[in-house]
Amino acid sequence: MVNQSTTDLEVSPEINPIKLPRTSESDKVKRIRHTTSHIMAMAVQKLFPKAQVTIGPWTETGFYYDFDIPEPFTEQNLKAIKKEMVKIIKRKLPIICEEVTPEEAKKRITELKEPYKLEILEGLKPPITLYYLGDQWWDLCAGPHVETTGDINPRAFDLESVAGAYWRGDETKAQLQRIYGTAWETPEQLAEYKRRKEEALKRDHRKLGKELGLFIFSDSVGPGLPLWTPKGTIVRFTLEDFLRKEQIKRGYLGVVTPHIGRIDLFKTSGHWQNYKNDMFPMMAENAEEAAQETGFVLKPMNCPFHIQIYKSELRSYRDLPIRFAEFGTVYRYEQSGELGGLTRVRGFTVDDSHLFVTPDQLDTEFLNVVDLILTVFKSLQLNNFKARLSFRGEELDKYIGSNEVWEKSQNAIRRAVQTLEMDYFEAPGEAAFYGPKLDFIFQDALEREWQLGTVQVDYNLPQRFGLEYIAENGTRQRPVMIHRAPFGSLERLIGILIEEYAGDFPLWLSPIQIRILPVSDVQLDFTKEIVNKMQKLGIRAEADTSRERLSKMIRNSEKQKIPVMAIAGAKEVESNSLSIRTRTSGELGVMEVYEVIEKLTEAITNCTNF
Amino acid sequence: MVNQSTTDLEVSPEINPIKLPRTSESDKVKRIRHTTSHIMAMAVQKLFPKAQVTIGPWTETGFYYDFDIPEPFTEQNLKAIKKEMVKIIKRKLPIICEEVTPEEAKKRITELKEPYKLEILEGLKPPITLYYLGDQWWDLCAGPHVETTGDINPRAFDLESVAGAYWRGDETKAQLQRIYGTAWETPEQLAEYKRRKEEALKRDHRKLGKELGLFIFSDSVGPGLPLWTPKGTIVRFTLEDFLRKEQIKRGYLGVVTPHIGRIDLFKTSGHWQNYKNDMFPMMAENAEEAAQETGFVLKPMNCPFHIQIYKSELRSYRDLPIRFAEFGTVYRYEQSGELGGLTRVRGFTVDDSHLFVTPDQLDTEFLNVVDLILTVFKSLQLNNFKARLSFRGEELDKYIGSNEVWEKSQNAIRRAVQTLEMDYFEAPGEAAFYGPKLDFIFQDALEREWQLGTVQVDYNLPQRFGLEYIAENGTRQRPVMIHRAPFGSLERLIGILIEEYAGDFPLWLSPIQIRILPVSDVQLDFTKEIVNKMQKLGIRAEADTSRERLSKMIRNSEKQKIPVMAIAGAKEVESNSLSIRTRTSGELGVMEVYEVIEKLTEAITNCTNF
Repeated sequence: MVNQSTTDLEVSPEINPIKLPRTSESDKVKRIRHTTSHIMAMAVQKLFPKAQVTIGPWTETGFYYDFDIPEPFTEQNLKAIKKEMVKIIKRKLPIICEEVTPEEAKKRITELKEPYKLEILEGLKPPITLYYLGDQWWDLCAGPHVETTGDINPRAFDLESVAGAYWRGDETKAQLQRIYGTAWETPEQLAEYKRRKEEALKRDHRKLGKELGLFIFSDSVGPGLPLWTPKGTIVRFTLEDFLRKEQIKRGYLGVVTPHIGRIDLFKTSGHWQNYKNDMFPMMAENAEEAAQETGFVLKPMNCPFHIQIYKSELRSYRDLPIRFAEFGTVYRYEQSGELGGLTRVRGFTVDDSHLFVTPDQLDTEFLNVVDLILTVFKSLQLNNFKARLSFRGEELDKYIGSNEVWEKSQNAIRRAVQTLEMDYFEAPGEAAFYGPKLDFIFQDALEREWQLGTVQVDYNLPQRFGLEYIAENGTRQRPVMIHRAPFGSLERLIGILIEEYAGDFPLWLSPIQIRILPVSDVQLDFTKEIVNKMQKLGIRAEADTSRERLSKMIRNSEKQKIPVMAIAGAKEVESNSLSIRTRTSGELGVMEVYEVIEKLTEAITNCTNF
Repeated sequence: MVNQSTTDLEVSPEINPIKLPRTSESDKVKRIRHTTSHIMAMAVQKLFPKAQVTIGPWTETGFYYDFDIPEPFTEQNLKAIKKEMVKIIKRKLPIICEEVTPEEAKKRITELKEPYKLEILEGLKPPITLYYLGDQWWDLCAGPHVETTGDINPRAFDLESVAGAYWRGDETKAQLQRIYGTAWETPEQLAEYKRRKEEALKRDHRKLGKELGLFIFSDSVGPGLPLWTPKGTIVRFTLEDFLRKEQIKRGYLGVVTPHIGRIDLFKTSGHWQNYKNDMFPMMAENAEEAAQETGFVLKPMNCPFHIQIYKSELRSYRDLPIRFAEFGTVYRYEQSGELGGLTRVRGFTVDDSHLFVTPDQLDTEFLNVVDLILTVFKSLQLNNFKARLSFRGEELDKYIGSNEVWEKSQNAIRRAVQTLEMDYFEAPGEAAFYGPKLDFIFQDALEREWQLGTVQVDYNLPQRFGLEYIAENGTRQRPVMIHRAPFGSLERLIGILIEEYAGDFPLWLSPIQIRILPVSDVQLDFTKEIVNKMQKLGIRAEADTSRERLSKMIRNSEKQKIPVMAIAGAKEVESNSLSIRTRTSGELGVMEVYEVIEKLTEAITNCTNF
């Protein structure tokens, strides 16, 4: 189980059996959501005759519909619309599909004076289908729908929010008003959906990140560029240290490389040709450098740099596999509108490694990498994931390298997940431009999916950079590269962890591991002495020296989600002990100090709870 | 003593009493070098009548002279010139100074047909002095000189090398031929100078860095951007870990900030206005961003970022001092001609910290910082340094901030070094544009000076960024900032350490700490077992599994400058011991394995030798 906090905020798939169907996976809810969206549009036009309809697609949990209307909808409006929708549902209007010629469709739309619909029609190919709600209202739509409006459960839908939108998503076009709604099979599903949504809001890592003092953003620095405050830095470093130690055990070698390089380097790698739009603008000293594209550029990936280190010496088969590892900070020029919190940023640190292996070593090394990733997930208490085989899609010109090497790489990945008997699915079109990937897709406590670690097999970059090693028979051979990152991005991982843990970091990751609360000033020296002792042992302990009342100190510790709280009163001082209360198990009673230290050390070392 | 290797390459000021006078510090050698340069020019014009003279200044260890001559000088030419110089010396020509009017000087130069001298004359103000060597040869010169050429010791000078140069250092002007020479009071000084020069070549960190596999440069990445190979990365991380632990003990808080920021941030800090030429070109998305200078830029310093974190919360006097620390990699656009090895780079990592303190805390915190720096130097076995007080110079427009805050800051620094009774000197004009500095100038085993750690007091940035804290009386007050970096730049420090240690890193810093050499295959298992045991204890041990002869294995270890070598033969296996040989103390005989581990652990922990 992922999170065992005693507070009642958390959910876990095990204790909550209600599954929430996603639109893309259930024909039934797709019909419900499609129809509910039509019912809403009909209700809006009934109440606001001037509103012109545009588009109204489904989302994974509901639908939205955009209207051209002079005034934004108010909360009051939404209530009235909902009421009107219930009326339409109760009338059990049959939903009738009619197939018409484009000319007929055009004629009917023109009668209705709906200019947006006319524009939509122009983009459609026959057959054109219209869906009628009884004979009251119709819309251009490809379906599918339920049979009558009566099939919608009036207690299983809701209107959620209003937002501005542009026609065709284009800022230069008309401003529209969008209403978001949700619709389900049963009121229970709706209730569970709302509960999860509320829970997601409480767990929002942007909100918790601020409350727990983990990171900040600054307008002066720029969007998507987090600054890590002292507590967040502890979480980062703890994760880095943990992985670094695991890597040393497995024969990885640390390297450090610059954050910038000449554009030429990325021309050789192919990034400049294939990935330029996702890179920051170049740094050119003058117009000539700019025109010739020979200036410097921030690195979007670490691979070309690790390759330079590989190339700096003549390598022998005896040296392979070589495993270079770096926590390498890379920069990608995401559109600023797409940035939000830590899960989508412009600068992030990849727990990157590049393995240079002989073709014979490929399968074994790939399995070793997957084994490391599974160890990492276990220590992070992340249990619910599956493997996505991100393969090449149909647009072949998006990828570099021959068919043969793509087949070889994709087969190597498929072999590995089959050997490990992993739960996997194939995703054509999700590969990197230079090679296929094995991505780990993690499903969190709220059934949301996140991409975490990734492994790639790459025959292309070794070829582009002319990498070689001297084989046992003295000939020059080409190594294969494995790119891998168990965390993926440290920033993104921490964002996901904050939400998954609802801010309750496991003991080993928590910025403060134990806080000791003296009941009164009398116990202050005792408290400080223990804190000192613990700090010398590497435990992140602190004393509450606020001199507040005990109840206030306890509340403050709870708010800061400190995993272990230890109260020191007169009795405890006398017996050299502490009264322990943990986030995961509540009150644990009085323990001797040495025992507390022992249990803390053990739990921290093994990445378990106190 | 700095370096205690048993090889005979090293020098140390203690065991070598010969002081080498620098020209700027000794009137005597200044005269000698000035005169020797004239003697050389006279000799050149005797042997190469077409050679035209230009300038011939002194350097700290000798002189050079630039000639306009069609063919570059050869090694043979230098020998002939030197022979001719000895003849001139032996003639004991008196050196006569004559003061003339500019007109008279012009007349005499015109007669000689020396166009460069004429150009030099145009830049001179009266009195114009000419120095004659007897009646044979004269040059425009301000002196001073010795009395006769016979005062030059013919066995105490030498001609060193030839290089191309441009008139006035301007690539568009005439190409000249430069001869470098050196001249001393005694042949012993010359010999010591040559020995040190040779030693400096052997210690060159670019050469040793390659031999020991510590770092590389790559043309594809760009000049001045080192890539750290696995062994160099161990040295970096060991230094970082060491300082991080010292800092945690002293209440520093780690932070992590991006490598880029909006230009606006650097306009607020003043970097853009005062430091733009030393920054990488901006990254502008389009011409408008470029024109308005609103794009992103690589950070040349970390301060504005740490300030953003300070500003992200309302701070109280109870929170101060706040000490943010980051190993922050910064980028500065040095001219590519000025780049060489690690001591001058374009990307480097500063062991940066910014302390935000109340005015009352300034003196104490400043002393604490200096104490930390002294601890660091001691652990690095760097003993020979003095404090430079880098103050504001006379060009006041180069600096920001009022006279009052400059006086306050400079006084705080002066107070600190006086309290600590440090060996110090004041250097006007060496301050940063926003505040004065205390720099630590280290003198190495070859008496070369390097700037290491630095501390700055800063009243300006807190004002520019409007920093505040709530004082005890409830009013809003401005904190003072201390910028500090004990290492300065990790890259530069490692470059200096390599040269100072001559590649012999002290045990705690050495990439490999002990190598175990099995005498034959029979001892291989024993060797691997001990290596495993040591690695589990965090000792960087490795086995020599090359199966070479013992003498070859020993030579390889010596070449790699591994501090402790342990030989495992039949006798050692039997007694569970190792035969130890260290770089610092030579053969230490046979020791039991547990004892070796104990001594290693102790030396590593205390930063001492085995």
